[in-house]
Amino acid sequence: MRATLMYAAGDVRVENVPDPAIEQPTDAIVRVVRTCVCGSDLHPYHNRTAADPASTMGHEFLGVVEDLGQDVTGLASGDLVVASFAFQDNTCDFCREGVQTSCRHGGFFNTAQAEYVRVPQAAGTLVKLPVGDDSPLLPSLLTLADVYGTGYHAALKAGVNAGSSVTVIGDGAVGLLAVLSARQLGAERIILMGRHKSRTDLGREFGATDVVDERGDEGVARVKDLTGGDGTHAVLEAVGYRQAYEQAVGVVRVGGVISRVGVPQYEEAPVGFGSLFGRNITLNGGPAPVRAYIDRLLPGILDGTADPGRVFDRTVPLDQVPEGYRAMDRREALKVLVTP
Amino acid sequence: MRATLMYAAGDVRVENVPDPAIEQPTDAIVRVVRTCVCGSDLHPYHNRTAADPASTMGHEFLGVVEDLGQDVTGLASGDLVVASFAFQDNTCDFCREGVQTSCRHGGFFNTAQAEYVRVPQAAGTLVKLPVGDDSPLLPSLLTLADVYGTGYHAALKAGVNAGSSVTVIGDGAVGLLAVLSARQLGAERIILMGRHKSRTDLGREFGATDVVDERGDEGVARVKDLTGGDGTHAVLEAVGYRQAYEQAVGVVRVGGVISRVGVPQYEEAPVGFGSLFGRNITLNGGPAPVRAYIDRLLPGILDGTADPGRVFDRTVPLDQVPEGYRAMDRREALKVLVTP
Repeated sequence: MRATLMYAAGDVRVENVPDPAIEQPTDAIVRVVRTCVCGSDLHPYHNRTAADPASTMGHEFLGVVEDLGQDVTGLASGDLVVASFAFQDNTCDFCREGVQTSCRHGGFFNTAQAEYVRVPQAAGTLVKLPVGDDSPLLPSLLTLADVYGTGYHAALKAGVNAGSSVTVIGDGAVGLLAVLSARQLGAERIILMGRHKSRTDLGREFGATDVVDERGDEGVARVKDLTGGDGTHAVLEAVGYRQAYEQAVGVVRVGGVISRVGVPQYEEAPVGFGSLFGRNITLNGGPAPVRAYIDRLLPGILDGTADPGRVFDRTVPLDQVPEGYRAMDRREALKVLVTP
Repeated sequence: MRATLMYAAGDVRVENVPDPAIEQPTDAIVRVVRTCVCGSDLHPYHNRTAADPASTMGHEFLGVVEDLGQDVTGLASGDLVVASFAFQDNTCDFCREGVQTSCRHGGFFNTAQAEYVRVPQAAGTLVKLPVGDDSPLLPSLLTLADVYGTGYHAALKAGVNAGSSVTVIGDGAVGLLAVLSARQLGAERIILMGRHKSRTDLGREFGATDVVDERGDEGVARVKDLTGGDGTHAVLEAVGYRQAYEQAVGVVRVGGVISRVGVPQYEEAPVGFGSLFGRNITLNGGPAPVRAYIDRLLPGILDGTADPGRVFDRTVPLDQVPEGYRAMDRREALKVLVTP
C-alpha cells in the first residue's frame, strides 16, 4: 500500500510499504477513507534529524473495517468507523477512570496517513458511524479522532460551565475546537488569543466573544483589560510552547484553572508562589482521552448543531500529503484533509 | 506589650513594642490567649539576613476581643475568637469563590506571637468560639487558625473521598493534619511519608495505614510497591521543597492529583510530558483559605471526634518563644504552643 514516511525535518514522502495484517486476535484492519495532518505532526517536521530512522506518520482516521481478529466484538466487516488517536481496550482500570490515553494495553497510532491501518484493541478503539462513506459529515466526524475531543478535554478539565469566563490560547484546530467546546459547555465569555485572522474569524463563528492578537506581556495586558484586571477562570492552552504556558499563568484568575492540551515542548516551568501556588491556581490537562468523548460529541455532529469539520480548509489526495505538511507549516492551511 | 521579633537567621527575641490600636473602623484588637510557632516560621529562621529589618512574627492565634472598630458587626468585647492566618473581608468575589487568601482587602498576619494583635477586616476574619478561655480544647481550636485547615485544604483539593488512596508527604503538623483530614473525608489507604517516628506514630493514630520513611527514589519505589506499582490517586505535599515535589510526581497515579500546601521554596519544577502532562496529572493547592473551613471543622473539635491539638507537644510562655523556635528547628518539638 501507499503510506506517508518522514525521513527528516521537512522531508515527507509517500512510498510503497507492506500491507498491514492482523497480528493479534484483538486487531482490526481498516481501509482509510479520510485522514489528515495534525499540528503535532509539525513538531517532528521541524525537529527530526536524518539520523533518526524514517517513521510512518498520522494518528487521525476514519474508514471501513476490512478484516477483524477473532476476539473483536461489536464490529463487522464493512462498518464505517472512527478511531481515537490513541488505541485502548477501554476496559482496564485506567480507562474506567477516564484516562484512556494511559490504557494498560494502549498506545498511539502513527500509521494513519496511509491506505490501510492495523488497529490494536479494535473493540475498545473503533466507534461505528451511522452514515455512509460518502457522507458530507465525514470531515466533522474525522475531528472526533483527535482535535474535537482534545478541545473538549481542555474545556471539560478546566471546569467550564454556564457563565464561565474562558481564555483560549492558540488558533490552531485544537484551539478553535476548544472555543466551540467551551461554548457548548455554556461559557459566557470566550477570549481567543491568536494572530491569524482567517482562523480567529472561524473562532468567532465557533463562539469566541473577543479576539486578542497580541502575545506575551502585551497579550496578557489586553486580556486583563478585557476582564477588569482579573483574567479568566478557565485558560485552555492549545499551543505547547513555554511562552504559551507563561501567557496562561498571566491571564488566569485567582482560583482558576489552566488546562493544557498543547503537547509541552518544555519540561520545566514556573509553578511556585509567584505563578501558581500563591493564587491557588490549578494546572491540569494532558493527552485527551478522546474515546471517552466520542459518544457525547457524535450526536451534535449528526444533527448539525456542531460543525467542527470547518477546521479543514484544504483537501489533498494521499500522494500529495507532503504538500499538505508544507501548507500547514507555512500557515497557508489550517488543517489538511487527506482522501487516500 | 511584649512581642516576638526576628532579627536574623537564628536570632529571635521577645521585646517591648507599642501596643496596637484600632486604625480602621473594620479593625479589632484581640488579647492573645494562645499562639504558636509554625513550620513556615522556620524558613526565615534559616534564611533571614541581618541586613533585613527586624520583623514581628506569628500568624496563628486565638484570644479575647478587647476593642472593636465602629464598623465591625457580629462580635462583642469579651468574645473568645480564633482568626484565620490570613485576614479577609469574606464578602468580595474572590472570597465568595472560596479563595479567601486572595481577598481583595486581605493580607497575612505577622504579629501574632505577642500579647495583643490588631485584626484588620475583623468581621470577616474572627470566628467566635463557644467555650471559655480556660477550655482544654484551646490547642485543638488554635489549629483552626492554620494547620488543620491547611491539611484539610490539601485533602479537599486533591478530591479525597470514600475509598481514595492517598499519599501524604511530610510529617510536620500540616502533614499529620492532612492525614486526619483525608481520613475524615473517607480515604481508605493513607500512606504517610516521614522519618520521625514519634510524628509518624501520631500519624498512624490520625489514620495513616502505612508509613514510608525512605525519601527520594527509594521512597517512591516503596510507595509504588505498596500500591501495585501504580501510586495513589491523591498526593498531599506538605513540605515545600523541590525534592518533595519530585516525590509527589513519582508516587501519583495516572489521572491523579498533586495538592500542595507546603509553601514552595522553588519557583520552577517539572510539568512536561514526562512528569504531569503525559499521565493527565492535576497540580493544585496553595495558601489555604482556612476561613472557609472553620465552620466545617469546628463541630468535630467541640464534640471530641477530632483532636488536632495533639500536634502540640511543647508549651512555652511568650518570653520563651526563642527557645520554641530552637526546639522546632532541632526537631525536638513538633509544634510549640505559646501562652502569652
